Amino acid sequence: MKHLILLRHGQSEWNLENRFTGWTDVDLSEKGRDEAKKAGELIAKSGILPRYCFTSYLKRAIHTLNIALAAMERDWLSVVKDWHLNERHYGALQGLNKAETAKKFGDEQVHIWRRSYDVAPPALTEDDERFPASDVRYAALAKESLPLTESLENTIYRVRPCWEELIVPALNLYDDVIIAAHGNSLRALVMMLNKLTPEQIVSEEIPTGAPRVFTLDDRMGVVDDKYL
Amino acid sequence: MKHLILLRHGQSEWNLENRFTGWTDVDLSEKGRDEAKKAGELIAKSGILPRYCFTSYLKRAIHTLNIALAAMERDWLSVVKDWHLNERHYGALQGLNKAETAKKFGDEQVHIWRRSYDVAPPALTEDDERFPASDVRYAALAKESLPLTESLENTIYRVRPCWEELIVPALNLYDDVIIAAHGNSLRALVMMLNKLTPEQIVSEEIPTGAPRVFTLDDRMGVVDDKYL
Repeated sequence: MKHLILLRHGQSEWNLENRFTGWTDVDLSEKGRDEAKKAGELIAKSGILPRYCFTSYLKRAIHTLNIALAAMERDWLSVVKDWHLNERHYGALQGLNKAETAKKFGDEQVHIWRRSYDVAPPALTEDDERFPASDVRYAALAKESLPLTESLENTIYRVRPCWEELIVPALNLYDDVIIAAHGNSLRALVMMLNKLTPEQIVSEEIPTGAPRVFTLDDRMGVVDDKYL
Repeated sequence: MKHLILLRHGQSEWNLENRFTGWTDVDLSEKGRDEAKKAGELIAKSGILPRYCFTSYLKRAIHTLNIALAAMERDWLSVVKDWHLNERHYGALQGLNKAETAKKFGDEQVHIWRRSYDVAPPALTEDDERFPASDVRYAALAKESLPLTESLENTIYRVRPCWEELIVPALNLYDDVIIAAHGNSLRALVMMLNKLTPEQIVSEEIPTGAPRVFTLDDRMGVVDDKYL
């Protein structure tokens, strides 16, 4: 049997400030670092010991992983970072205060942007500094592959190749793998693993700092799915 | 032109306690963490921005790299960890106080163990808990490939395949690469790069926390070699 541990990053500085984050690279808050440490301790206690790690290009997930690995005494695991595991891109909403945005566009519209499957928030323009192509870490990628905004569906489509080309081979090679990532990129993985419909995935809430363990057979079929 | 940045880890807890460390997995001291941060700031200021990272299986090097990457705002770089970049294995001296060891064996003997090219300290026995095979991170490796003790020469021989099979390909692919490692594994790299003799390499001192930048041509010939 194989184990895939999914870990959503702990509280970030912008969770505290109630702002839309998306691809903005904000760090963990002190509470977030504490959540990451507790998650690592829980995983160590469970006896499921990952042999390989994935995370996104965003430091709130990277630091969550580093802190959890230290708590497991598994700092020595190699870490693959892939932008395909980034949070959903929130388009022109990134950086805005959630309450102010609700006042401006109405609660219902904001609810649709946040909770629908295939509706994306307003798009950035390519000259916006929040467009990833202006960030050194994405500068070498084709502009066409970088999002100006994303729906949950768009996020799922870009997570899929990372699952197929990197994560499944790592599970085949190492059996026990951990992924520290974000609410929506983890939703994409849960949707694929549990074969959920769009209606089911939008109501799936993944709590921060709570390690979720999928037990998988050799064909990546889910045998068990539980939080530690 | 390519750049290879070598970074020796900052002060560890056992540097403070004056004990032989080798493969013992002790963490950085507060001063060591501070050295790592300053090293990252120096690298960022130099404008040489690594695109790929290597480190050892030992947390004093791993944490040095993580802290330096954070100071460079390059947390997003993938990190390959390889035990071939570990510190020289110090055999039965690991854990012993350096001053007490000098009293017991004599200053001259300790000097030979520490500063000769091909003399190794007393070996461990295979049932010693300090033998790497009893550590989970090395348990999957062939026992014969794990050291009971090492001379500097032994260390150089095991670093070489990592250089040839992992680091050179990464330099070809990414141009700018950083390696956070240890006094003796870095000496091995310096010896290969600068084509030093055994007599020359034993007198090469690599300071902690000081980024050393090799500028290399396409055939890994050294064009420049300086500390930032």
